[in-house]
Amino acid sequence: MKITQIRNATQIIEFGGKKFLIDPMLSAKNTWPGFEGTARSEIRNPMVDLPLEISSLLEVDAIIITHTHPDHWDQAAVDTIPKDKLIYVQNENDEALLRSQSFKNLVVMNKNSRLGDVELIKTECQHGSDEAYSNPQLAELLGDASGVIFRHHQEKTLYLVGDTIWIKAVEDNMRKYLPGVVIMNTGWAHVLGYGAIIFGKEDLIRAHLVLPEARIIATHMEAVNHCLVTRQEIREYAQINHIQDFVLAPEDGESVTF
Amino acid sequence: MKITQIRNATQIIEFGGKKFLIDPMLSAKNTWPGFEGTARSEIRNPMVDLPLEISSLLEVDAIIITHTHPDHWDQAAVDTIPKDKLIYVQNENDEALLRSQSFKNLVVMNKNSRLGDVELIKTECQHGSDEAYSNPQLAELLGDASGVIFRHHQEKTLYLVGDTIWIKAVEDNMRKYLPGVVIMNTGWAHVLGYGAIIFGKEDLIRAHLVLPEARIIATHMEAVNHCLVTRQEIREYAQINHIQDFVLAPEDGESVTF
Repeated sequence: MKITQIRNATQIIEFGGKKFLIDPMLSAKNTWPGFEGTARSEIRNPMVDLPLEISSLLEVDAIIITHTHPDHWDQAAVDTIPKDKLIYVQNENDEALLRSQSFKNLVVMNKNSRLGDVELIKTECQHGSDEAYSNPQLAELLGDASGVIFRHHQEKTLYLVGDTIWIKAVEDNMRKYLPGVVIMNTGWAHVLGYGAIIFGKEDLIRAHLVLPEARIIATHMEAVNHCLVTRQEIREYAQINHIQDFVLAPEDGESVTF
Repeated sequence: MKITQIRNATQIIEFGGKKFLIDPMLSAKNTWPGFEGTARSEIRNPMVDLPLEISSLLEVDAIIITHTHPDHWDQAAVDTIPKDKLIYVQNENDEALLRSQSFKNLVVMNKNSRLGDVELIKTECQHGSDEAYSNPQLAELLGDASGVIFRHHQEKTLYLVGDTIWIKAVEDNMRKYLPGVVIMNTGWAHVLGYGAIIFGKEDLIRAHLVLPEARIIATHMEAVNHCLVTRQEIREYAQINHIQDFVLAPEDGESVTF
């Protein structure tokens, strides 16, 4: 497999002979304001430009949208992506949203999804703490998110964990599917008053403890206002915790292969 | 009350007319090696010298030792502190240790401890994750730790939380005793392979969510090898999460009063 970091959670994944675009956020730098009610909302998003031409990102077999927050699916993506592109979404709500945006070739992921020989197993996320979800207004904003297990007989299993904090379901999936490669969104995005809504640095250690042989790709950093962890911090943290051989934090435009 | 940060978890607390020395680590800079099996163990401890003469720290009514790890109770403390000094310890094991070190005036704390009019209520800690305690050797090393609720009719209630990660008992104590001031050990000390064994930055938000009016004193930073969070990082984190009016991270030698 080949995983190319694009920007934030946007990645190109080549796996089992298929090519996927993940979570396209395609706006130019500084297009929209910081997320209201989150850390550093005075910073505009995206914080950096794309490292590649948008056209090169669209030469894929399918797009996977783990959820439709604007840092995973933005207006530029809606405007740019051909309406007949094959797009996998997490649930009927997101399907309805994309249908309203005139997309016509939609698949709602489940435990038995696939594209050709590639299995695409939808997994559970929790996009914030129990306390955050106990606030009804915030629960509505955080909503549902999903991850995906990629399986193919000629590849190691890949677990794209998605926008989530560390929950039992994540650990259970790691133990059940035993992925050799794990993509973790470690930007430690913060909502004011409620803390992190995605992984932070310590979750790398949690994952490594469950999957001591797996390679971990850290992503969703240095691109939107509320993410407080940088790739350099990830690398230093991995080094001082002696897990640097298992953790990669590719720069935008950089590829890793397994 | 007046709380003076000394170094690491060592503090002087003046409360209800009594003066307490907390967790004396009294060695000179670089006296002993970094904790084996922890992050940055190549760094010697303590990382800095004391900000005051040791003699000035011993003019107290009593000493409280939350647990006897060497960054809370070290050989220099054993050698320097008069053997008849009144010392509160967390349990019979620590009492036996101090008795073997020839200390004679020991009190094992419980739910009904006091010094004169000051109530000293022992509270529970968990000095590492469930995964860390599931490793028998590490569980033995981590051992027990404790916190203390200070109560007096002329003072706000003070919760010295101790060396712990965020657990339900900590939250329950906050809700039960409603402290106006909370001392949190936020150095995010890391054991290799198992992550944090004391609070980190995000626990400030957790505490503020439970006790939105309380002032939080962050301590146990920048003095021993495995603590990965600095006071400057605490202040920046509080600022970007809009809780800077509730969080203080005093420098060594600095006092705060409430």
